[in-house]
Amino acid sequence: MKRYVNGKIEELQIAYLGGGSRNFAWSLMSDLALEGKLSGIVKLYDINYDAACENMHFGNKISSREDVEGKWKYEAVRSIEEALVGADFVVISILPGGYKEMNSDVHLPEEYGIYQSVGDSVGPAGLMRALRTIPIYVEYAKKIKENAPEAWVINYTNPMTICTRTLYEVFPEIKAFGCCHAVFEGQDILCHAIKEVCGIEGVKRSEIRTNVLGINHFTWINSASYLTIDLFPVYREFVKRFGEEGYEPCGKGSWENYFTANANRVTMDVFKRYGIMAFSGDRHLAEFFPPWYLKDKETIRSWKFNLTSVEERVKMTQIRDETRKRIINGEEEYKLKPSGEEGVRQIKALLGLEDFVTNVNMPNLGQMEGFPIGCVVETNAYFSKDSVKPVMAGKLPDDVNSLVIRHVYNQESTLKAALAKDKEMAFRTFVNDPLINLSLKDSKELFVKMLENTKKYLSGCEI
Amino acid sequence: MKRYVNGKIEELQIAYLGGGSRNFAWSLMSDLALEGKLSGIVKLYDINYDAACENMHFGNKISSREDVEGKWKYEAVRSIEEALVGADFVVISILPGGYKEMNSDVHLPEEYGIYQSVGDSVGPAGLMRALRTIPIYVEYAKKIKENAPEAWVINYTNPMTICTRTLYEVFPEIKAFGCCHAVFEGQDILCHAIKEVCGIEGVKRSEIRTNVLGINHFTWINSASYLTIDLFPVYREFVKRFGEEGYEPCGKGSWENYFTANANRVTMDVFKRYGIMAFSGDRHLAEFFPPWYLKDKETIRSWKFNLTSVEERVKMTQIRDETRKRIINGEEEYKLKPSGEEGVRQIKALLGLEDFVTNVNMPNLGQMEGFPIGCVVETNAYFSKDSVKPVMAGKLPDDVNSLVIRHVYNQESTLKAALAKDKEMAFRTFVNDPLINLSLKDSKELFVKMLENTKKYLSGCEI
Amino acid sequence: MKRYVNGKIEELQIAYLGGGSRNFAWSLMSDLALEGKLSGIVKLYDINYDAACENMHFGNKISSREDVEGKWKYEAVRSIEEALVGADFVVISILPGGYKEMNSDVHLPEEYGIYQSVGDSVGPAGLMRALRTIPIYVEYAKKIKENAPEAWVINYTNPMTICTRTLYEVFPEIKAFGCCHAVFEGQDILCHAIKEVCGIEGVKRSEIRTNVLGINHFTWINSASYLTIDLFPVYREFVKRFGEEGYEPCGKGSWENYFTANANRVTMDVFKRYGIMAFSGDRHLAEFFPPWYLKDKETIRSWKFNLTSVEERVKMTQIRDETRKRIINGEEEYKLKPSGEEGVRQIKALLGLEDFVTNVNMPNLGQMEGFPIGCVVETNAYFSKDSVKPVMAGKLPDDVNSLVIRHVYNQESTLKAALAKDKEMAFRTFVNDPLINLSLKDSKELFVKMLENTKKYLSGCEI
Amino acid sequence: MKRYVNGKIEELQIAYLGGGSRNFAWSLMSDLALEGKLSGIVKLYDINYDAACENMHFGNKISSREDVEGKWKYEAVRSIEEALVGADFVVISILPGGYKEMNSDVHLPEEYGIYQSVGDSVGPAGLMRALRTIPIYVEYAKKIKENAPEAWVINYTNPMTICTRTLYEVFPEIKAFGCCHAVFEGQDILCHAIKEVCGIEGVKRSEIRTNVLGINHFTWINSASYLTIDLFPVYREFVKRFGEEGYEPCGKGSWENYFTANANRVTMDVFKRYGIMAFSGDRHLAEFFPPWYLKDKETIRSWKFNLTSVEERVKMTQIRDETRKRIINGEEEYKLKPSGEEGVRQIKALLGLEDFVTNVNMPNLGQMEGFPIGCVVETNAYFSKDSVKPVMAGKLPDDVNSLVIRHVYNQESTLKAALAKDKEMAFRTFVNDPLINLSLKDSKELFVKMLENTKKYLSGCEI
Repeated sequence: MKRYVNGKIEELQIAYLGGGSRNFAWSLMSDLALEGKLSGIVKLYDINYDAACENMHFGNKISSREDVEGKWKYEAVRSIEEALVGADFVVISILPGGYKEMNSDVHLPEEYGIYQSVGDSVGPAGLMRALRTIPIYVEYAKKIKENAPEAWVINYTNPMTICTRTLYEVFPEIKAFGCCHAVFEGQDILCHAIKEVCGIEGVKRSEIRTNVLGINHFTWINSASYLTIDLFPVYREFVKRFGEEGYEPCGKGSWENYFTANANRVTMDVFKRYGIMAFSGDRHLAEFFPPWYLKDKETIRSWKFNLTSVEERVKMTQIRDETRKRIINGEEEYKLKPSGEEGVRQIKALLGLEDFVTNVNMPNLGQMEGFPIGCVVETNAYFSKDSVKPVMAGKLPDDVNSLVIRHVYNQESTLKAALAKDKEMAFRTFVNDPLINLSLKDSKELFVKMLENTKKYLSGCEI
Repeated sequence: MKRYVNGKIEELQIAYLGGGSRNFAWSLMSDLALEGKLSGIVKLYDINYDAACENMHFGNKISSREDVEGKWKYEAVRSIEEALVGADFVVISILPGGYKEMNSDVHLPEEYGIYQSVGDSVGPAGLMRALRTIPIYVEYAKKIKENAPEAWVINYTNPMTICTRTLYEVFPEIKAFGCCHAVFEGQDILCHAIKEVCGIEGVKRSEIRTNVLGINHFTWINSASYLTIDLFPVYREFVKRFGEEGYEPCGKGSWENYFTANANRVTMDVFKRYGIMAFSGDRHLAEFFPPWYLKDKETIRSWKFNLTSVEERVKMTQIRDETRKRIINGEEEYKLKPSGEEGVRQIKALLGLEDFVTNVNMPNLGQMEGFPIGCVVETNAYFSKDSVKPVMAGKLPDDVNSLVIRHVYNQESTLKAALAKDKEMAFRTFVNDPLINLSLKDSKELFVKMLENTKKYLSGCEI
Repeated sequence: MKRYVNGKIEELQIAYLGGGSRNFAWSLMSDLALEGKLSGIVKLYDINYDAACENMHFGNKISSREDVEGKWKYEAVRSIEEALVGADFVVISILPGGYKEMNSDVHLPEEYGIYQSVGDSVGPAGLMRALRTIPIYVEYAKKIKENAPEAWVINYTNPMTICTRTLYEVFPEIKAFGCCHAVFEGQDILCHAIKEVCGIEGVKRSEIRTNVLGINHFTWINSASYLTIDLFPVYREFVKRFGEEGYEPCGKGSWENYFTANANRVTMDVFKRYGIMAFSGDRHLAEFFPPWYLKDKETIRSWKFNLTSVEERVKMTQIRDETRKRIINGEEEYKLKPSGEEGVRQIKALLGLEDFVTNVNMPNLGQMEGFPIGCVVETNAYFSKDSVKPVMAGKLPDDVNSLVIRHVYNQESTLKAALAKDKEMAFRTFVNDPLINLSLKDSKELFVKMLENTKKYLSGCEI
Repeated sequence: MKRYVNGKIEELQIAYLGGGSRNFAWSLMSDLALEGKLSGIVKLYDINYDAACENMHFGNKISSREDVEGKWKYEAVRSIEEALVGADFVVISILPGGYKEMNSDVHLPEEYGIYQSVGDSVGPAGLMRALRTIPIYVEYAKKIKENAPEAWVINYTNPMTICTRTLYEVFPEIKAFGCCHAVFEGQDILCHAIKEVCGIEGVKRSEIRTNVLGINHFTWINSASYLTIDLFPVYREFVKRFGEEGYEPCGKGSWENYFTANANRVTMDVFKRYGIMAFSGDRHLAEFFPPWYLKDKETIRSWKFNLTSVEERVKMTQIRDETRKRIINGEEEYKLKPSGEEGVRQIKALLGLEDFVTNVNMPNLGQMEGFPIGCVVETNAYFSKDSVKPVMAGKLPDDVNSLVIRHVYNQESTLKAALAKDKEMAFRTFVNDPLINLSLKDSKELFVKMLENTKKYLSGCEI
């Protein structure tokens, strides 16, 4: 038990798997730096040890600054065990495979007329990524069981559902959950709606109450409020006004300037269609349906969102690498600001310093009525000391449930196929994805090629 | 309580809704005629009173024959109440709508490249048929509740799942189940497999034991045996031998001679693919998947089965009408033989004369693990006096479950849409069918046209 | 939707059923007076209209004071409909039957050697009280359905489980929950334990986090914390020190001075025995077990708690009546202080002003694993705007579950017996209570006498 | 796969654990001898090797007779592995502990006023017997897992529920079920009722259809029929006529002549009380309730059944030992007749030779609504080739469910206490038994003494 003395908890240990990360790792560093009640050590483990070392320097640079309240030491370690032994928390954010594999995931299906706007959750790309992620997470689960069975594990890696599910499959007593900010961004849209429709400015997304149902990136909201205001009529009006044109807070047409930007047209169309909100961002959301929004490049443009090319991802990474170098060398100062992630708040709650309700990815214990027990769902949960307990979410409408549960079973089959190294089961899962709109023959051809391209991550097995 | 005296139960009353039927009604008449232990009256109700009258004459003609053991009186009645009051059993086999509607159901989607080989269960045709059937079954359920709440109700109408489900939705205490011979025909295939692979001739389908899972026409078998023989390796060998060419008991190429005939290629392909048997006949089975087998006319031919044109259905009906006339006039004698349906055996069991296990369509009380409670499933059930109790069926493999549960939720949504007269929900269900492979715009266009064509059966409501 | 303007919600309407109450009504008045954000009208309905009128004067007297922040108008009404129409909230606290009936409930079984320390939840007294409460709550549920179907209903009446369960049985869509401060008092004990064992003073019960499982007055805690401190080892040490002697915050022997006081010996003994905490106060807790703690007067004394004689209850009521008179007449001023109840905080949350987690009595949607769906359980729930969603509580250990579920089924049977007016089922429930330790003959004799004594509240039916 | 050739299955192997048994072993031998379709070897294993040898001679003597159709070889083996390797079926009937332990189980509680009429299922005796049986069954389950994982396991040992449950706990994939003829004897009573009330003679118990719910020896019937006759009104009339006096097929007063005999008064009283049938014989049935029927010797006499003294059991065993000797020596011939057990019929069904429905003890997969998943229940199940699938049994009335589920949880706790060697949990289970009507102090004293008396079977652990 960590002691709370003089308003502080010291000597905490966080194991960071994927410790070379230039995204979530920096968010965590930033949030830890801004929180004065916690301090300790973060052990960075990465298969790319050099990247972990760079982050070590990066993190310690931040900690050394006078304006930083949360003083943490960062240390790159050479083995996962070194990171885990003694850890109170384990944070995981990795990239399973490299850009070469991602290139095959995302762009090969385009040759068959299948377009994917992200390619990290479902669709042919999501499946391939899952197949190479599962062996890694099987390993993680085993290592955690051996070295830090009592630690809380926070996953940020996609495919979120598959990663979290694999941890529980291998080590059922694990204390793990998965976090994603997609719903938070939806709450931001609701803040815009409040401004546009009710004329109330300055509402923060943390003031929005939502009831969350479904699975990661296919996450639904069947009630939402701000103070006494029911946000359903508000959002309905908002969609009426902006559904056709799109809504872009940064100015009309701004969706064309950056690959992750969009005009929320898909999100609003789904609301019109189903009557309940689905928040995961247009790029993610579109991938969970049949190719209504992703039929071809023209259709995609008409819905005002972008495909994410791997080339652009590579470019972004290079920029970040250079930034990191400059910061380490003192040529630039990292700007501290709340990342929008809730990891540090969750850590505080798990230590006992506060309690609150937020949405996370965890196994279904019954909170999602109509979903199989044990599958990983995204719903609200109540965080308090050493405890994350799901809040009963209720049930999706039957027509929406049908859309979502299809992915639930596909994800379960993906996991089973990967664990059993069963290529045929993987293929059966592949053809069951709504984006796959091909003859069986073409499906098989594409599947085999994609699998071939990712095989070096399949532990030397055929699948 | 019906009395069993001198080896006979007399004075039974069967209400036959759809009493003008030229198919199931004749099967029942035949089976009743062959069963010496039961007698009584069958009250024939039909919206086409003349057809009911013809069947009355037809049935009484049979009863009057000396070689008939089960002596039943047939009576056409003008109201459903007359049929129901006093009934011990209610049999329902109707055609919801006429050939005009069926023509729209089956052939209009062809203009959009969607081919359907039957069009009575799922797919765009199945949905439209469901929408016009539900109001009729709502009415039936109410009438049964009022006039014959204790009677056992046997449904033969398609869409089977929707019909049975509607009865329970409206009158939850109803004692109803739905029967279909599709699985029996699968058991016949297994008899052929035994002959071909093991060299054992003369096995009857009633000697085959199967464990049945799923829903009507998408019904799966995960264990099968004949005496001490496990039929899975037998069938695997059978599929290995005949999967490519097809298996046709009546001679090669015979599938081209009659519209319901086929070469079992789809059935065998599904087994190769999923490793468990799916028996409902190629024509039905193909409709539950994405358009793998129904992509276009050429693909369909390559799988060696036929589309069922409505023209041919009309022709067949005319032939039967003429046959009935000739039989009534004494120009021809109806050939009595067991129909292959189990209705009369079930009636005997419910009266207490025997007990047995067979597959039926009933609400899920837990017998189908992983399916929602209350949805209608097809599994084995144990028939005994005044009791049909489901046998625990277990669980489908996740990949198959995913295929089936999609239809389960679609059917639930169909029912809700019909009860709520909610056109939008009906459309959301429509686009969620795996055969619908269109843009949203085309989907909407097709949906609206089809709905228009069936509107006169939608009780004057928009939907 | 109530509007939140200038930091206030005005024009709320609360219907108070049992509006003549001298206990919960005063608590509510006090808490409303202390809360500046809410105002409106409280409509007091009581079968004793005079008592409602006195409370009207009492309440308005409070509202007229200058130091009061929450300005409410109190109005006595002659019909339940007048109270309900327009209500945003319905509060129910009634005494089903009078002291004559309570006298029979509590003291008649003593002639058969059965001692009951409260007699309002289970045991022979609890059953009789339930039988006369159910018809009243059936009526309430119907009236609420007709007149205020959207209102939130807060129940304070015992038997808590039965009352809440009856509301949902009659009107399943009702938005109702039941509140009891018994667990809060347990949290107070934990504050004492923190002081005694850890030396930390001044901890408030609202700072204690507990996971609550079970049913009202047989409520268990399987995890408890204060900030970073796990309270299980703390409480274990506390019980080790004080379990034998008892723990009395107001001084040794103080349990003998007031009938509801006790030395927490039963509570601590149960912890020693089962390893998890049970908090409902010794007097309530003892009644849920076989007569281990209630064997005879000597045993009860040895456990340092008191039987609650009806005589003392009558006395207390008289004192309160006089107090009320003096306050109305201005001879005395009512001292405003937080009641310790959470009703007003819950109302604020339901209006959207805050969100929090606390324990309430609601139907089991799955939050209590191992309990039947639909039975009323006490667990944590998440309050937010127009929403109370249970938090997954998990499972009791099998041995504890066995103790609790027995009462769950008894309560279900009690409800069914009352609704069906089935005296035999009521008797079968009676003999199944763990306090009933008699031969069948004596049980029947006692049952019949007790039923006779309460018959005027059984709606003129035999039961 | 066993081959069925010329109407016979040969070379079967049955492992008999407890192979020295003079009761179930002889029944099995007799039934096997009468069945011409099966033959093979029975390997008899017993901790008393000499007893197994005597049964080997006994069995081979029978097999050598000319009038015997089923020719089996019997062989005593010295290790459990020898029996199991190669076994198609495993039959278990053992006596856990000896008469000394049974003496403590049954007679020591009498010193505390607790009378038990059998002492093998529940009550203090049942618990102690369970505690010493569980370690043995843990061992069996492990050996079966290692040596015969595919074999079907039939358990006859009491406590039936605990034995079957332990097998599944240790080896969840085991194919095991437990058999008890108690329900069959109830069906015999129904045959008597048919004779007495309807005047129909000669009905066999196998012609009675019953729906079975609950747990072994606390088994309930909520529907029963013979041909078209509903047996509930028949039995109601029967109970009306004979409930007071008792019903004794062998003549009035015959219950006094033999310790297992009784007048069915308890059985009939339970029907009067609960409205549904409970069949397990008065001696077993009485033990599951509070001491209504077992209050003292006088009460027991008044209900016309007997306590089973251990002395009488010892005597009976001696007589059987002598009989066995005489038969082996050829001084007497064993009279072959159907035992009334269904083991051989079940074996035939599992081999594929027939299919039928009967009641067995198996884990709850959902067939018993309202009971925890996984606990062992007694319901109907459908036997067919290599398959025993539960039939949905439905739900007990709440008041009966409350009585039964208490034992369900006690049995679950017993198992957990035994597996965890947790003496305190065992004691908590002990005091939760309805027959325990003592103060906590006396309960503890009795528990400790009883545990001491059985300790040599608790694997050297404290418990």
